[in-house]
Amino acid sequence: MSDGGERRRRGGRAGVGREVNAIRQPPWRKLANPYPPMEILSAEQLEAIHDTSMRVLEEVGVEFMSPRALDLLAAAGAEVDRASGLVRLDRGLVAEQVAKAPASVTLTPRNPGRAIEIGGRSLVFSLVAGPPNVHDLDRGRRAGNFRDYCDLLRLAQSLEIVHYIGNQVVAPVDLPAESRHLDCYHANLTLTDRCFHATAIGAERALDAIEMMAIARGVTLAEMAASPGVTTVINVNSPRRFDGAMAEGLMAMAEHGQPSIVTPFTLMGAMTPVTLAAALVQSNAEALAGVVLSQLTRPGSPVIYGCFTSNVDLRSGAPAFGTPEYAKAAVAAGQLARRYGLPYRSSNPNAANCVDAQAAYETLMALWGAVLGGANLVYHAAGWLEGGLTASFEKVILDAELLQHVAEFLQPIAVDEDSLGLEAIREVAPGGHFFGSPHTLARYENAFYQPLLSDWRNYESWQEAGAPDATARANSLWKRLLESYEEPVLAPERREALDAYVARRKEAIAREAA
Amino acid sequence: MSDGGERRRRGGRAGVGREVNAIRQPPWRKLANPYPPMEILSAEQLEAIHDTSMRVLEEVGVEFMSPRALDLLAAAGAEVDRASGLVRLDRGLVAEQVAKAPASVTLTPRNPGRAIEIGGRSLVFSLVAGPPNVHDLDRGRRAGNFRDYCDLLRLAQSLEIVHYIGNQVVAPVDLPAESRHLDCYHANLTLTDRCFHATAIGAERALDAIEMMAIARGVTLAEMAASPGVTTVINVNSPRRFDGAMAEGLMAMAEHGQPSIVTPFTLMGAMTPVTLAAALVQSNAEALAGVVLSQLTRPGSPVIYGCFTSNVDLRSGAPAFGTPEYAKAAVAAGQLARRYGLPYRSSNPNAANCVDAQAAYETLMALWGAVLGGANLVYHAAGWLEGGLTASFEKVILDAELLQHVAEFLQPIAVDEDSLGLEAIREVAPGGHFFGSPHTLARYENAFYQPLLSDWRNYESWQEAGAPDATARANSLWKRLLESYEEPVLAPERREALDAYVARRKEAIAREAA
Repeated sequence: MSDGGERRRRGGRAGVGREVNAIRQPPWRKLANPYPPMEILSAEQLEAIHDTSMRVLEEVGVEFMSPRALDLLAAAGAEVDRASGLVRLDRGLVAEQVAKAPASVTLTPRNPGRAIEIGGRSLVFSLVAGPPNVHDLDRGRRAGNFRDYCDLLRLAQSLEIVHYIGNQVVAPVDLPAESRHLDCYHANLTLTDRCFHATAIGAERALDAIEMMAIARGVTLAEMAASPGVTTVINVNSPRRFDGAMAEGLMAMAEHGQPSIVTPFTLMGAMTPVTLAAALVQSNAEALAGVVLSQLTRPGSPVIYGCFTSNVDLRSGAPAFGTPEYAKAAVAAGQLARRYGLPYRSSNPNAANCVDAQAAYETLMALWGAVLGGANLVYHAAGWLEGGLTASFEKVILDAELLQHVAEFLQPIAVDEDSLGLEAIREVAPGGHFFGSPHTLARYENAFYQPLLSDWRNYESWQEAGAPDATARANSLWKRLLESYEEPVLAPERREALDAYVARRKEAIAREAA
Repeated sequence: MSDGGERRRRGGRAGVGREVNAIRQPPWRKLANPYPPMEILSAEQLEAIHDTSMRVLEEVGVEFMSPRALDLLAAAGAEVDRASGLVRLDRGLVAEQVAKAPASVTLTPRNPGRAIEIGGRSLVFSLVAGPPNVHDLDRGRRAGNFRDYCDLLRLAQSLEIVHYIGNQVVAPVDLPAESRHLDCYHANLTLTDRCFHATAIGAERALDAIEMMAIARGVTLAEMAASPGVTTVINVNSPRRFDGAMAEGLMAMAEHGQPSIVTPFTLMGAMTPVTLAAALVQSNAEALAGVVLSQLTRPGSPVIYGCFTSNVDLRSGAPAFGTPEYAKAAVAAGQLARRYGLPYRSSNPNAANCVDAQAAYETLMALWGAVLGGANLVYHAAGWLEGGLTASFEKVILDAELLQHVAEFLQPIAVDEDSLGLEAIREVAPGGHFFGSPHTLARYENAFYQPLLSDWRNYESWQEAGAPDATARANSLWKRLLESYEEPVLAPERREALDAYVARRKEAIAREAA
C-alpha cells in the first residue's frame, strides 16, 4: 500500500491501543474526506428545496413549546402566536441568524489528544445513543442497565475508530430516572477520555454535563464556553414542533457555548409527506428553526445541522433504515447543510433484528450516504441494531470494521516515483510473481489495511476452526477487547471532584422530589 | 417516493416477473449512473500513471504467446522479440490503436428486450462466472455440476436485476471438459433470454458461442458482427503475459465483432508490485496491450477495459476482495478507462467463506467502488462467494438485494411542485402525522423501494417467525423463485437448430480426440 510508511509512523506515535491482545487497529487519527461530496441535487433542485423550506417557515410556521423561546423569537421580529406557540420566520431573519453560526467547531474532552473537529472536511464517528435494550450472543436481549452501559463504554474506548460517545449508549433503566444522567456522565468521564453527548431533556441535564466536563478538564465554565467539550442532539417533534424540554435544552447549550445538533427525526409518510423532496423541505425548515433559536440565544454559538430522514414500510408502518431512500436523503441533506455553511451530522442506522448480512448492508448503505454527503459527524456509527431499539456488542465490532474500511478508503492514493514502481515491474519476468521482490519486502508489514473482523482464511482452515461466521467472530473480539481494556488515567483530585459533584446533585434532586 | 408513479408505469409495462410467487421486484430496466464518477486520482496523478504505463509498454514490454498475435503486432510496427514473445509498444502506436475502439457497445441477446449497453453512463450487472464449487444451506458445498449450473441460470433469469450471464456460473465438472462449453451455451440460450459471456480459451470455444447466439437470434455471423451478442473475458497472466489461448480467443472475438473484456487479474504484492499506483500502472499497460491487439485484428471492434486489482493478506498470501484498497483501485481504474474513451468493467467480489455480514460488507464495498468509478459492467455481480471458489445460491439473493439497492439509489430525486409537498405540509398540524394525508394515500403503493431480502418486522414478530437471519431468508427466497421459474419462449426451429449444432460439434470434438 502506498501509504504504508506514513501509517507505520503514525502507528508508532499513537502507541497504546495499536495492537492489544493481538487485535491490531489503525491508530486514532483525525479523518478528513478529501473528495468533493456528491451532488445528488442539481443547483436548481437545491434552490427549490431551500425556497419551499423558507415558505414553510414564513407561511406555515414552527411551534415552540417554551415561553422563553417565544420571547427570544418575538424580540428578533418573528411573528409569534402566543396561544398556539406557532412562530413564523421571515427568510431574511433566518438567513441573518444562520449566517452567525460557525462553519466548524472543535470539541475538546479531558484528553486533548482526543479532541475532534466537526466541520469542513472532517469526519467523526460516534457510539450509538439511546437504545432501551442491549444484546450480545451469549446473554441475548435484555433491558438496558448500568453494567452493560459501562461495558459498552469500555469497548468504545478500546476502539480507536470510535471518536465520540453518544448519549446513553444504552438506557440504564436499573438506575433512578431523575438522576441516571449523572451516573452516565460520570462513567463517560472516567471510563473514556473522549467527548460525549449530553442528555438535553431540559436545561438542568445539559448543565450537569457541561459542569462535569469542565471539572474533568480542569477548566471553568467560561473556558468551556470558548472551548466546548460536550454536545447534545435536539430532536424536533416532527412535524414542526420543538417541545419545551428540547427548546430549553437547546438554549442552555447555546448559552454555554456548547453545540446542539438540531436533528429532525423524519420518517417519510409518517412525520413528513411521503416524497423525498417534501421530507427534505420540512426537515430543513425544522433544522433551521432550531439553528435560529441557538443564534438568538447566543450569537455565534456552535450548532450542527442534523438530518435523519428515512422511510417506513407503508404496509405495516414499520420504520426502515439504511434504505436507498435513506442514503439519498443523507447525500441531499449534506448539500443543504453546506448551502448554509453549517457542520453536518448524519447517522449509521439499520433495521435488522440481528447482526446478519442485512445489518451489514443497511449500515454500509447509510455510511456511504453519509460519506458521499460530506457528513462531518456520523452519529450512531457503532452499535445500533434493530432500528435503534437495541445496542449490540457484536454490532459495535461489525461497525468498527465498516468505519475502518471507510476511513482507509479515504486515505489518498500515493503516486510518486517510488509507488509507481517502474523498476519493480521491470525486475519481474512475465508470468512471475512479486512476493520476494525487494519493493514488496520493504513494504511488507504495513502495505495493506489489516481488518479487524474479516476472515480471509481458506475454506478448509476456516472449517477446521469451527466455521465461525462474522457475528461469531465479533463475539470473540469484543470479549478480547474488554479483557484488555485499560481505564484512561484521570488525576485523583478531578475524579474526587466528579464524585462530589454527582453526590451533591443527587441530593439536590432527591430534595426537589421530596 | 418521488418516482413512484413512474415506477408503477414501468412495472405495468414489464409485466412478467414483476411480482411472482409473492416476490416483488422492480422491473427490468436500463440503468444509468447519472452522477459524475469520483475522481480519486488528481489529473496529475492520472497522467503519472498513464505515463508510467506507457514506459512499461515501451521499455519493459508484454509477452504474447501466439505467433499470429506477434505477426499482427510486428506488422503494426511494434518491436517484437520472436524468441521470447516479448513485444514493446510505442505510445504513439498505442494511442492510435486505442482511439479506434468504440466508447460503447450494445449487446443483443435472443430477446431484444434484454439488450444491454456497455459504455457511457450505463450500468449492467452480471451473474458470477467460473467458480469450481457450488453451495447452498440445504446441500452444503459441492463440486460444480450441470444440474446446479442450470438452476443458477434459472435463478438469474428470475431476477430482473441480473442483466447478463457470466461464463460458467459454476463449472459443470460432471460433463466432459472438451465439450462442456457447448452444454453451457445451450443452457444459457434456452433457460435464459439474456446475453452471455463465452469461454475464450482458444478460438474454437469463442466461435461456438458466436454461432450459437446467431442461431438463437436467427441472424447470420455477419449480422452478429454488426450487432454483437456475446462477450468474453480475456485474463492476462499478470505480470505482462498473454498466453496463447487468451491471445487466440481475443483475436477470434475481435474478428467476429464481439467484445472482449481485457481484464488483468492483479493481486498487489503477488502479480504486481505491492503499491496501488504500481498495480494500476501494470494493469493499465496490460489492458491496453490487449486493446491494441483487438484493434489490430479488426479496427473498430468493440473491446472493454477491465480492471480487477485487489490485495493479498501478506502474512498468509491469501487473496482479499472488497477491501478498501480494492475499492480505491476500482474507482481509479474507471478514471483510466475514461481517459482512453473505453467502456469500463469492474467486479463485485468478496473473500467470505459463508453468506454472512462479511460477505455483505466486502461485496458492498466492491459495488460502491464500481459505481463511484463509473463502471459500465459489474461482473461477478451476483453469487460470488469464497474468493470466487464457490457460487452460492443464497449469495445470489443477497447480491440481488444489494444491486437493487444501488439501482434504486441511482434513480434521480424528483423535485417539482407536487413532490415538494408544501400543501401537504401545511395540512398537518405540528406534532401530527401524515399516514392519512391525501398526498400520502395517492402515492401509497409505490412510494418506496420494496426490498427483496430485508426484514423490517419488529423484534417480537421476527422472533415468532423463528428469528430467521438474512441468509436463512435468502435460502427460502431462491427456492420460491426457482419454483415459479418459467422458461423463456424460444421458437422450436431455433431450439432444434441449437440442438443440432451441439450434436454436430460434439461429434467433431470426439473425432478430433480419437
